Amino acid sequence: MGQTPAAMPERNRFVPPPPGPHFARRVPDGDTHERHVCAKCDYIHYANPKIVVGSVVTHGEHILLCRRAIEPRKNFWTLPAGFLEEHETPEDGARREAQEEACADISIDALLAVYTVPRISQIQLMYRASIAEAKFAAGPESLDVKLFLWAEIPWTELAFPSVKWALEHWRESKFLKGFSPFTNPIRADQAGGVSSSM
Amino acid sequence: MGQTPAAMPERNRFVPPPPGPHFARRVPDGDTHERHVCAKCDYIHYANPKIVVGSVVTHGEHILLCRRAIEPRKNFWTLPAGFLEEHETPEDGARREAQEEACADISIDALLAVYTVPRISQIQLMYRASIAEAKFAAGPESLDVKLFLWAEIPWTELAFPSVKWALEHWRESKFLKGFSPFTNPIRADQAGGVSSSM
Repeated sequence: MGQTPAAMPERNRFVPPPPGPHFARRVPDGDTHERHVCAKCDYIHYANPKIVVGSVVTHGEHILLCRRAIEPRKNFWTLPAGFLEEHETPEDGARREAQEEACADISIDALLAVYTVPRISQIQLMYRASIAEAKFAAGPESLDVKLFLWAEIPWTELAFPSVKWALEHWRESKFLKGFSPFTNPIRADQAGGVSSSM
Repeated sequence: MGQTPAAMPERNRFVPPPPGPHFARRVPDGDTHERHVCAKCDYIHYANPKIVVGSVVTHGEHILLCRRAIEPRKNFWTLPAGFLEEHETPEDGARREAQEEACADISIDALLAVYTVPRISQIQLMYRASIAEAKFAAGPESLDVKLFLWAEIPWTELAFPSVKWALEHWRESKFLKGFSPFTNPIRADQAGGVSSSM
């Protein structure tokens, strides 16, 4: 709640606006990257990637999805996920988001995946989680929260590519106990090129 | 290089200074957390946790450590690690840091751990990596870079608690192929209390 993950597809790298009136883009002494630097006092404004935490939540053979009440991708289905807050562990953040968006008290079982959306500088930590009882409800950012069997998942109405990735990676690893978290799948048009995963 | 990870031990939660002259701390409408909000234009300045990426780099039975040339913890030994840059995957960031701090061309093999340092809002993604040849040198932020056998590791001269965690977790999982990344170890004084790991 509060901070909403930005929409995924963005053609170009986003350069944020200067944080104040005297800031200009330059590479500070001894640095390797261009930053916003204040021309008056040499203050360096570091911009950092943001962390999204979320989870594939199951109840028996069902998977919990939330229909978004807000833009971007209003009306589309998503996993309970959102920006990690300061002073919060990723697991606490994923539990908080499930509580806020689906009123669900989840138990986290494993780190499913670490996805990167480089264009918008987003790192997504997606967990595998479950609810013992089918107790959930739409929070203020959801129009609806529902349990779906795998065959019922509304694939054409998913909000973001990483929702599809996480669901597929969940299915691929559902019987595994210890496993290395997944990273971005290699897209068909990237195969043979440089992958953003390891 | 450029951005230096802050020192770990900090007694209280750090509230950053306001980003501009008209900003005050308050909970925006529909939000759940206190933010810096501009009293003139209602602009909300979201502060987010920062991501540190690094790696335990091995060459045969040896582990690569860097002696810090800069504060905090100058002269102490650390793993090649630093802040993830915008538009960068965590693996690319870990490779870049090893290149910058140790002039080493590493191959990443697995995500070793996801640590949280809540007081300074830092998430650390630590990888398991190796170098095929013993080719390395001190970069501008290192006084020295050396290979250590396990028995030679200077435990009392390590820069940060998470360096020790990562080394111990590396040893615990060195023969494992697929494994769930580690999280913060439970400290003796926290055992029985609430753990920051799952």
